[in-house]
Parts: sequence; C-alpha cells; structure tokens
Amino acid sequence: MRLSKAFFVTLRDDPRDAEVISHRLMARSHYIKKHGAGVYSYLPLLQRSLNRLTEIVREEFEKIDLQELTMPYAIPGELWKESGRWSKMGAEMARFKDRKDNDFCLGPTHEEVVVDIVRGQVNSYKQLPFTLYQINTKFRDEIRPRFGLMRGREFIMMDAYSFGADREELDRVYEVISDAYCRIFDRIGLTYVRVEADTGNIGGDASHEFHVLAQSGEDEILSAEDGSYGANVEKAPTPSPQLQSKVTGKSWGELTDSPIEEVPTPAKSTIDDVADLLDWPTHLCMKTLVFQFRSSEAGEWKPLVVYVAGNRQLNEVKLKQAMLADNLKVQDLVQMPEKDVEKLFDAPVGFLGPISKKEELLKARTYFDREVLVSHGLVCGANKKDYHLRNIEPKRDLAKLYPHSIKNNDLDLVAVEAGEVCPHSPSHAPYRSDRGIEVGHIFKLGTVYSKALKAEFTSKEGKSQPFEMGCYGLGMTRTLSAAIEQNHDDNGIIWPKSIAPYDVIVMSLGRKKDDEVSVFADKLYESLRSKGLSVVLDERDAGPGIKFKDADLVGYPLRVVVGGKGLEKQELEYSFRKTAAEKHGLAWTGDVNFDDLASKINNLWGSI
Amino acid sequence: MRLSKAFFVTLRDDPRDAEVISHRLMARSHYIKKHGAGVYSYLPLLQRSLNRLTEIVREEFEKIDLQELTMPYAIPGELWKESGRWSKMGAEMARFKDRKDNDFCLGPTHEEVVVDIVRGQVNSYKQLPFTLYQINTKFRDEIRPRFGLMRGREFIMMDAYSFGADREELDRVYEVISDAYCRIFDRIGLTYVRVEADTGNIGGDASHEFHVLAQSGEDEILSAEDGSYGANVEKAPTPSPQLQSKVTGKSWGELTDSPIEEVPTPAKSTIDDVADLLDWPTHLCMKTLVFQFRSSEAGEWKPLVVYVAGNRQLNEVKLKQAMLADNLKVQDLVQMPEKDVEKLFDAPVGFLGPISKKEELLKARTYFDREVLVSHGLVCGANKKDYHLRNIEPKRDLAKLYPHSIKNNDLDLVAVEAGEVCPHSPSHAPYRSDRGIEVGHIFKLGTVYSKALKAEFTSKEGKSQPFEMGCYGLGMTRTLSAAIEQNHDDNGIIWPKSIAPYDVIVMSLGRKKDDEVSVFADKLYESLRSKGLSVVLDERDAGPGIKFKDADLVGYPLRVVVGGKGLEKQELEYSFRKTAAEKHGLAWTGDVNFDDLASKINNLWGSI
Repeated sequence: MRLSKAFFVTLRDDPRDAEVISHRLMARSHYIKKHGAGVYSYLPLLQRSLNRLTEIVREEFEKIDLQELTMPYAIPGELWKESGRWSKMGAEMARFKDRKDNDFCLGPTHEEVVVDIVRGQVNSYKQLPFTLYQINTKFRDEIRPRFGLMRGREFIMMDAYSFGADREELDRVYEVISDAYCRIFDRIGLTYVRVEADTGNIGGDASHEFHVLAQSGEDEILSAEDGSYGANVEKAPTPSPQLQSKVTGKSWGELTDSPIEEVPTPAKSTIDDVADLLDWPTHLCMKTLVFQFRSSEAGEWKPLVVYVAGNRQLNEVKLKQAMLADNLKVQDLVQMPEKDVEKLFDAPVGFLGPISKKEELLKARTYFDREVLVSHGLVCGANKKDYHLRNIEPKRDLAKLYPHSIKNNDLDLVAVEAGEVCPHSPSHAPYRSDRGIEVGHIFKLGTVYSKALKAEFTSKEGKSQPFEMGCYGLGMTRTLSAAIEQNHDDNGIIWPKSIAPYDVIVMSLGRKKDDEVSVFADKLYESLRSKGLSVVLDERDAGPGIKFKDADLVGYPLRVVVGGKGLEKQELEYSFRKTAAEKHGLAWTGDVNFDDLASKINNLWGSI
Repeated sequence: MRLSKAFFVTLRDDPRDAEVISHRLMARSHYIKKHGAGVYSYLPLLQRSLNRLTEIVREEFEKIDLQELTMPYAIPGELWKESGRWSKMGAEMARFKDRKDNDFCLGPTHEEVVVDIVRGQVNSYKQLPFTLYQINTKFRDEIRPRFGLMRGREFIMMDAYSFGADREELDRVYEVISDAYCRIFDRIGLTYVRVEADTGNIGGDASHEFHVLAQSGEDEILSAEDGSYGANVEKAPTPSPQLQSKVTGKSWGELTDSPIEEVPTPAKSTIDDVADLLDWPTHLCMKTLVFQFRSSEAGEWKPLVVYVAGNRQLNEVKLKQAMLADNLKVQDLVQMPEKDVEKLFDAPVGFLGPISKKEELLKARTYFDREVLVSHGLVCGANKKDYHLRNIEPKRDLAKLYPHSIKNNDLDLVAVEAGEVCPHSPSHAPYRSDRGIEVGHIFKLGTVYSKALKAEFTSKEGKSQPFEMGCYGLGMTRTLSAAIEQNHDDNGIIWPKSIAPYDVIVMSLGRKKDDEVSVFADKLYESLRSKGLSVVLDERDAGPGIKFKDADLVGYPLRVVVGGKGLEKQELEYSFRKTAAEKHGLAWTGDVNFDDLASKINNLWGSI
C-alpha cells in the first residue's frame, strides 16, 4: 500500500473518552472510528490485523477438525423463548420487532441457535463428538461501554460449541480445544495465563479463562509462583486454616472454657477499632455481613447472613457458588440497606453478631466461613449498641444455634490475597497477583441447553439423551486490544509480528516523485512485495519527523529507511520496532540488486 | 475432514418452501439451516465456499489498492437522520432502541457510515482518490423473503465506497473497480454479463449491474447479439422509430389530411379488439394509461397520463426517469383505480384518448412515447363509451392540446423485446434476451451523500467541495446461490473449482476401520492433504449408494474411489463432477507410492 494513495490519517490528540492505552493508540493511529457509545468501525489497519488473527484461529481449529459456520446476528425471538432466556437476558440483549411484528434479538451469544442447528439432525452417538464455531459480530448493550474495543457493544467474537455423547467425551474435547487456545496465543506471541474461572450466567459446571497479562487488566489473576496453578481472584481458593497453620504457623487462638462475656465497645463499630480496643487479633474478630436475595425478578426478598474472619473480604462469587450448591436459585443478591437490617434484627449495624434469641436472625439463611469455625475465643457483636461479646467458641456456642449451617464447615467464602499459600501448589508456593485482560472463556455447559431445547440423540445403549455441550469464546477485537495493552511504549504500538497490519514499512525520504530516493524506494517496495511480504510505502509529501512518528505510532515491526545520505554511502538503515533504539545498516557495493536486497530484508523479517 | 467425525447430514426431501434449485440443493446437501423467514445459518460447507469467495475478492481488490474495513451492523440512527434517510427507508430497514432509548438501525447499506468515517479526516484533494470496502452482514426486512439465500433478510455483501475529487476521478475509479468485478467473476468461473442499469433508490446518475446468467434468473437481460451492448430490460433502449424504419422497413402510417372521425366501437375496449374491428395495425392505435403519483408520503396524489403505441408495454422505470428529468420528485407511482379515472375524466376506461375538452385531462401531467409522435392516422379512444376516433395526426391534433408534452418528442417509455434492433450495436444486431441473477450493482453516486452529510475537502483550486462518490455492491451469499443456479444437474451441485467447499473427496468403500481398503483410503487422504489440497474422506459406516449420492449432491469437483476391486487391479477410479459420466483409472504397479499417487491426483486437480 502506497500511503499517499491510502485512507490514512493519524491524530495528535487522544480522544477525550479514552481511558486505556489501547483505546488511545488505536484512535490516534487510525485503527478505529467511533460512531456512538461502544460502536466502532474497524479501519483498514485494524482489519488487516483482524484478518491475520482470524487466519491463525482458523488454521489451529482446522488442525483439530473444528468446523466453521456463520450463525445469524439477528435471531428470531422464538428460540430464546423456547430456552427460557428471552425473559432472563435483561437489557443487555437488544431486541426489535420485524415488519410482521415478530420478536428478534441481536445475538449476544449463540447457544440457542447452534442447538437449533444440531437438533433433529444428529440422532446417533456415532455422529459425535463434533464442534462448530463461528467468527462473527455480536451485540451486547453494555450499560457502560468503554475502553474502546475492550468493552464495546458491538464486537467480533469467536464462539465454538461442542457436542458430545457423554461427560467423558465433553472432557476430552474441552482439553483439545483448550490446548488449541494455548497454541493460538503462543502463535500470536502474547504472554497469557489459563486460569480457573467462575461459570457465571452462562451456566455449566467447569470453566477456564484465558488472560493476557497487562497492567491495565480489569481482572486480578492469582497464580502459584511455581506456575502450578492459576485462577481468577473470584475463583482462587484460600489455603485451608490447617494448611495456613502448617506452612506459616498461623494461630487460630486457644480453646477457652470461659463463658461468653459482654464488653462495652462504645462507638467502636469497625473490626479494626474493636480489635484495637480489646487488644485482640482482627482475624479472631467475626465480621457480620447481611444481604438479601431473591430467586426470580418477581420473587420475595429473603435475608442472608454471612460471618467471615475480621481480616477478610467476602468474595461474592464464592458465596453464590455456595448458595448454588445448596440448591438456592439466586437471581439477585445485594447488601441489605442498613435501616432494613436494624429494623429486621433489632440491632445496629457494626454491633451485629450470631449470638442472639431473635427468631429473624436465627432463621435467616446463614453461612460461616471455615476460618471462623476453626477459630477459638472469637469476638463478635452483641446485637446491642456499643457492646461486643468475647470468648465465643464455635463448637460450644454456634453449633446449637445454627446446627444446619455449622454442618457445612468447609466453606471458603473469602478473597485470597497475593503472598498466601496456594493450596494447589505441591511445593506450597505462594500466590502472586497479576492484572489480566480476559480474552477467552471456555465452559463445560453440560446438558443445560440441550435439555431446554430438547436436543437428543440415541446413546450406545439405545437410550434417548441430551447432548453434553461445551462452549468456547475468544474475543477477537478484544485480543487485539489486549495485544496493544501488553505491547506498546511511549511512541506507540509494538505489534507482535503475527498480527501486525503490515510486515514492513519502507520509508522514503524523497521529496519529489521522480528523484533518486523516491525511485529507489518504489523499486524496493515492489521487490519486497514480490517476496510475499506485506509492505507499506510511505512516500507521502511530508517531512521525516512526521513519517518516523507515524511509523512508531502504527507499530510496523520492521522499518527500512531510504534517504539521500544512505544511498550515497550505499547503505539502508533499518530497525525493529521492538528494539527501536538500535539502528542497523544494510550495505551493498557496485550496482544495487533489488531482488537481493529484498531477500536480505525478508531474512531480517524471518529473524523477528 | 473425515466425514464420520463431521457434522454432516444430507436430506432426501426438498424443503417445502424451496422454489428454486439453489435453495433446494443447499438445504438438502447441508449448506444452510433456516431459523425463520429469510434468516439462515451458513453451515460448514457453505462457510468454506464463502471463505474462498472472500479470498478471491480480497486478492483482486488488494491488487488495485482498495482498503478493507468493517463497519457496524447496528448503526446509530443519528447518522440516518442527518442524511434524511431515517424517514425515507420504510419498513425494509429494521430499527431498535438501545437501553438508553437511542435509535439504532440494522445497516441495510452503509453510505452514511462510510461518509462519517471519511469526513473531517480527509481535507485535501492530494489524499484522493481512495476506496474502502467491507465484506459484512446486512439486514433488509424484505416483505417476501424467498429463494433461500437469493433473497434472504440477513445476507453477506461486499460493499465498496470510492471517494474522488471530481467527476473524472470518479469515472476512472469506477472503471477500475468494474474491471476488478470482471476479474472476480472470471476467476470464479461464472458466465455473466455487465449491463447498464437503473439507479433506483440509491440515487446517482450512472449504474451497472453484473448478472450471472441462469434460466431461473429474476431479471430479464437484453444484449445485442454481437456482444456490443447489454442492459437490464428496465434500462434497455428501444431502437428509434427512424432506425426501425431503416433496418426493418417498419411503416409508421401515411400522413393524412382527413379530419378526425368518430367511429362506433361497441364493447371494444382493448387495443386488439379495436384494431381488429377497424382493420388497423395495433402499433397505430394509441394506448392510454392513467397513473397517480405523489412526491412525498404526506403529499397530494396527482394524475399522470401516458400514451404509448398499442403494441407496446409501458416500462415504468423509463417513465420514472422521464419524470426525474422533468424535476418531478416521485415518492410513489401507482395506476389510478378505474373508478377514480372515470370520475376524474368523465370517460370510461378503454375509451380514453387525448382529444378532449376536459380541463382535468388537458392539465394532467402527460407523456407521449416517441413512437406515437412519429405515427400518422392514429386511432384513439373518444372519451365516450363505445366510440373511438381515427385519423389523428399528432402534429395537427396533439400539438395545440399538449404543447408542453409534445416538445418532449424523443421519449422512450416502452419495454424493448428480444429480436428488435439494438440501437447501440454498430452492426444493427438484434437484441437477445437472457435470464440473469443480479449479483453485483455499481453506482456513480456523485455528491448526494457527501453533500447531505457535509463531507468536504479542499480542491486544487482551494475551494471547499463535496467528495465525488461511487458505491459498489457484490452479493456474496447470492453469488454462491447464483453459481449453483448456473451449475447443477439432476444429481446435485457442480461447483466451479474456485469456490467448491473442498477440492477432492476420497471415497472409501471399506466397511471396517482397519480393513485394507479403509487403511489405504486413510493414507491417500493424508497424502493429498500434505499436497495442500482440501480433502474430504468419506469413511462413514454407510453403503456405496449413499456415498456416491451424497458426493454428487454436495458437488465436490474431483472424486477418487478406493474399493476392494480397484486395489486388486492396482487401480483407483476417479471422476470429475462436471463430466460425471466419464470414469477414469489411475493405475500403479508394484508397491503403491502414496506420495506419487497424491501428486498425480494433484495434477488432475490442476487440469480442471
């Protein structure tokens, strides 16, 4: 592409709404154009990177016999009504009516459609397993679209769906696809981790995320320092109290037979203040958290009380998982407003605790984190303004009040922190914390959707049963953003060569169309193209300053400069974007042989 | 792809709603899945053909420096309000509101978006011309979606938009892109024509269509037998009356000075009946057509009267062009209901004519086809039940009644027919008629959209002026349908090799996974793949009948059969789908060399 003939314009200033670096750089270097909140055009440079990424995904998936297809963007509402998600999806799913008043939605995900494709067509276990995927546009009406392509409303995603006969087949396919994800990110050249993740709204019972590591990442990733385990913070387990004791010698207090004692703690409503006053470790002070939840939009709100160690933060995702394991359907879960708490339990927030005679408290759904239950001599609120209790022994004092809750004595409900022991690490390595950008998410869906949509096949045993499904997402436009978040400097983007929009930029410092420099640059450009490299020729009527700046901004991996001085010396200057400081020379003697020069540059490209 | 591991199912029966062959074959051979009226998934076989077609388009466009991008599918309504099309587009454009109550539409076309991308960014004629294109999904809420992918509601289209500084630049780019279209259709291997076309709703002042010729085509294409000219029937000009006389000796009657005479024609209200009764040529009997039109949806309906020769059919597209040339804005144009005609003109339909004293008739907008105006001694209705007039001399009798209409004496308002002289043919060759499927449509838009959206640049002369735009559409999914309409037989699809989903099918007639035939077929499959061919291995647990039938249905260009008898004879049978009847043998002696065999098959592939 000759830049003088191309649609290409760089901007000096960052767009006002750009909070992250990939958004700033993409907007300034002509990769995107915003038309509205979260709605972008992908300009020619981005399109080329996107096409390269698409090619990598296709090649890796073809190797493992995945089949590509395209599902509709505008989906008949009927399918979503059949699965029951029409009413569940909320405002994030955009909807419209066609001219005949039929309901449609803009596909935010395609489980319903893919099941509609397969059901009735595949009748026997012999036709299984197989996996279908698409690389297609999706629309999710995010409440707060931001970060450019990172959280847009319209975006390009790869979504795959596997169909298997049984759990074993699902597990096998899941690992094959997970491995292909790794090969894809390896080929792109990104630093990433695969971590355990929560299954969230999509449903299903196992899930992993792929994160590109970058300081600007929205997610916290915890990994064992020895690389043996990684998880999203939502999912990462705390070490058990026993393991903490074993590895760090942590004490959970001494068993006491002193009776419960009420102590005045005037105006001390925070854990730190109470611990300070009573000179007692925070982790032996109980924190009381009150929520309310409902199982459907029209359902009744019910109270929920959670007790965790005073030094801990509750992890809501783990709490929801615990509720799910109790067969509690949770549509909404929110903190109960203070005044409702005080009205319901007849005690002020800051002084709540489990020791009470109040029916409303004792009958509320209650969870204790396992750290609380192994501790001795705990402090907790007295359910009375300006008073706390001490000498709480869980076995003695809580068991009779909450017999059901206490049985469940291994619940991990709190957020783990960097530096703690990773329980999955054989060497008891500590967790380290990184910031990650979620670019892939894979799920073992099981039979949720095949059951809902009555998609069945005949098993080896002659029984009709629903498909075991997996689903696999990879954000295409988001991966490109994440690549920039991970690979940039103050001057612009540093593309991994695999997904750079062009391989090489030939920069001509000639000022007239027919001067020696311009003619040389043009010949070199054509020679490089004939070697199969994708090349940009910057022969614009502009000064060297602008050209160097633009090249750094756009992030071409290899730059070759054709200038008057160089030609005199019979030498071309080239440099790699990754190590911009180093300039190198490509020399020749006698008449220049363009084909030879292009071969040498092609070899340089190969060396990146 | 091993078929036993693939999602692949053929159907015995045509879908009920399938009216055309491509729809029937695509549905039966697992290319598409219908989810609702005009809404389809493109299954893996179709996806592969689509990817190949995409690659051809990209390669040809890259050669001429077109830049690919992706514009949003869901487009903010603001842009359409700015251009004025939000209110004009009607029910074909699907609309929705986002969660913040902003208007959106599903892009039926992208002029507004592309102008939004370019305006403000390109300020100088030096940055021109350039062309942007996308290959993307569109939604048009067709009132009657049908013919499978031929007239779907969601479909994939290539749409390009060129920006130039002046008319000359637009004309040049237009021809370069038009030539690229020809190369694309040539490379696909389709029989097609480029014809002049009406510009329709998109606006602009010149336009061509690309039609794939097929009996089932919805459009009639007229081309000079000598290949010198082609046009959609809507656009194809009739030969002038003078040319008709010159080439075929056609007579337009003898000048008469007899006065107008009223003759009884009881119950003869059709041209044929009147011509019969009066023993007068039909082409010298005037046909009177009454329409009503309005210039906006809220506008007043106005009458319009058109006179054409009695042997002719009016061409409404030509009529609209004539009105446009008169600066008449036409939003709607329909035949006036009979009872309204009779009430307005006080004369019965079937007996209407231009000779009248009735103000309403004389003042109505009136057009005469040029053939009427060169004729002599015409017959027309007497505006009185059961009577006609004869001896009408246009110059004598019409000029004073319709001075304004008569000045416009070279209007071509009628449909031309096969066999007539093509006026653009230097050798006066006759028109031939073909059926065509419109797969491409290109327009010289001019400044319609750049003006409406205030997209301007500074010209060489320092003046601010709007871009001269062209727009270029190519129906991707429709081209695949058209390829099937043109290339099939009773057994199924016959893909042009360029866009076949796979190159070769290796058919294994083995029945067990490890028998000699199956092992041989598997080795051959792997060898062919290593040559870079895309290969299907049919090793399903099914009889040869099913396998042969399916292979023909799907339309793989080259078939290689591995069977027990062949292996005994040391010979493989192969055949080309195009010439299915002929079977050929590939023989070897001694131990089989798979690499060698694969090379030979690769050569066969090259020979197609």
